[in-house]
Amino acid sequence: MIGLQDIYDAHHRIRDYALWTPVMTSSTIDKLTDSQVFFKCENFQRAGAFKFRGALNTLTQLTQEERDRGVIAHSSGNHAQAVALAASLSGMKATIVMPKNSPKVKVDATRGYGAEIVFCENSIESRVQVANQLIEKHDYVLIHPYNDERIIAGAGTAALELIEEVKELDYIFAPVGGGGLLSGTSITTKGLCTGAKVIGVEPKNADDAYRSFRDGRIYPSINPNTIADGLRTQLGEITFRIIRKNVDSIITVSEKEIVNAMRLLWERMKILVEPSGAVSLAGTIKMNDSFSGKRVGVIISGGNIDLSEFFSKYS
Amino acid sequence: MIGLQDIYDAHHRIRDYALWTPVMTSSTIDKLTDSQVFFKCENFQRAGAFKFRGALNTLTQLTQEERDRGVIAHSSGNHAQAVALAASLSGMKATIVMPKNSPKVKVDATRGYGAEIVFCENSIESRVQVANQLIEKHDYVLIHPYNDERIIAGAGTAALELIEEVKELDYIFAPVGGGGLLSGTSITTKGLCTGAKVIGVEPKNADDAYRSFRDGRIYPSINPNTIADGLRTQLGEITFRIIRKNVDSIITVSEKEIVNAMRLLWERMKILVEPSGAVSLAGTIKMNDSFSGKRVGVIISGGNIDLSEFFSKYS
Repeated sequence: MIGLQDIYDAHHRIRDYALWTPVMTSSTIDKLTDSQVFFKCENFQRAGAFKFRGALNTLTQLTQEERDRGVIAHSSGNHAQAVALAASLSGMKATIVMPKNSPKVKVDATRGYGAEIVFCENSIESRVQVANQLIEKHDYVLIHPYNDERIIAGAGTAALELIEEVKELDYIFAPVGGGGLLSGTSITTKGLCTGAKVIGVEPKNADDAYRSFRDGRIYPSINPNTIADGLRTQLGEITFRIIRKNVDSIITVSEKEIVNAMRLLWERMKILVEPSGAVSLAGTIKMNDSFSGKRVGVIISGGNIDLSEFFSKYS
Repeated sequence: MIGLQDIYDAHHRIRDYALWTPVMTSSTIDKLTDSQVFFKCENFQRAGAFKFRGALNTLTQLTQEERDRGVIAHSSGNHAQAVALAASLSGMKATIVMPKNSPKVKVDATRGYGAEIVFCENSIESRVQVANQLIEKHDYVLIHPYNDERIIAGAGTAALELIEEVKELDYIFAPVGGGGLLSGTSITTKGLCTGAKVIGVEPKNADDAYRSFRDGRIYPSINPNTIADGLRTQLGEITFRIIRKNVDSIITVSEKEIVNAMRLLWERMKILVEPSGAVSLAGTIKMNDSFSGKRVGVIISGGNIDLSEFFSKYS
């Protein structure tokens, strides 16, 4: 199992290209939660989410033979853009399989980073099938979105920067979907702030990680209906093992709590956060009775959201 | 006429309460404009806009007799919230006259800062009339939104922080409505970066400042139709005098250019900026042919925008 040193190594590897994102605070939210909340704003990360850290950490470790083959990922979301940008910066060819109903803004961004896009049907099965066909034909290297120690170590560098900047924390909250961010965060936090509690937050409507953590076995995520589109995936073997070891608790939040948290971040902090990225604040607000006066880290995972409907009223 | 020393004095006066807002950059926008753009993000300022700087600088200079009388402002926008918060922090009573069609989020925020709100009809005339009646009755001290040297000196502290942080600039762009921000910015910039050009940017649909600057006389702003609601006002005698002396050029941008700039800030930089706040970037993009490779400061004036329609789809 990877440890704190792997997070440091990842940070060293990515630091020339990944942003050291700002830590932000809000007196409104401090008052609301009666605590000191430090937001690690990965919505400001390149390609709009923490995913870039793991993608870059993985791609920079490929062998020359793997680099020559090129990489592939299947994703409708932030992993697609992260792999596309990381490949472009590392001088590699990237192919991204995307569902044909993907928002135009994400398709444009992924293509803008220089990746080749192959469209598939709108199901996970189709994504996997099309990707496998391409791998068979072209021998591309598959970059998994979370169940890979290099991806996890990259994800853990966000908490590393947060803790280096604000020092001691009593709690840290991160969203959980496939578990890459939560497992990476947990390794960093338990390594640097021994006493801090690590809390994963998940939409109630996609509570497979909550149940998996409770029952000690991975449950599948079956057609979850949540606006937090980045958290619809299920845990992987590797992320689950790390989470069981390091995470103190996984809690769930309702769709309404997610929207309220997102709205607070937009209206009061003036930062654009996607629903999945606001889930960790929703959990913080839900649990704040238990930590009056404490120092709380909250990972805002990403800010990629389709705004075409909002801006259509102006055109 | 006030000068650089007044800006320094204002900065000293407000620094315990006003935020030193972050300077942000974007590789996407640098590439787009072929220059180095430094955004001074006053959308992150307390009460959501640069207005807090001027309000606080003014209120902290009131005499004890004026403090005891209490302050009044009439505003449908950011000045209302700025005066309300500055009064609350300075332990003064504030009364704000707001049009009855003001967005709920602005009314709530103003009330949340502890001000008393008096509603009026939806015209400028009604705002002035109701405010005057209240002043006559209660002897409140009127805080003008821009035509006041203390307000202008406060507004100029944003550029002061920007230049102290990024040092030399070749250009600086600020939106112009009543001219408080532009005049304050121009004093700071001409004082610290002698060679820098100061450009005011105005909506084409509210081009009274453009014409006033060109013709050397103040034109009124008559029912301008622009989404940049903070820029519908006309210049004041004091702001106009400073602008004529210090500003190099005032340019205008279309509604479409404003929306495109706002969308870039939201989608690519993940920051929430109101239309008035995006006008300065719209001007930068419009003029960028003339400054390849230059260092450009852009003041993002505020981030207060009514999001209830956007969030209604989630409820």
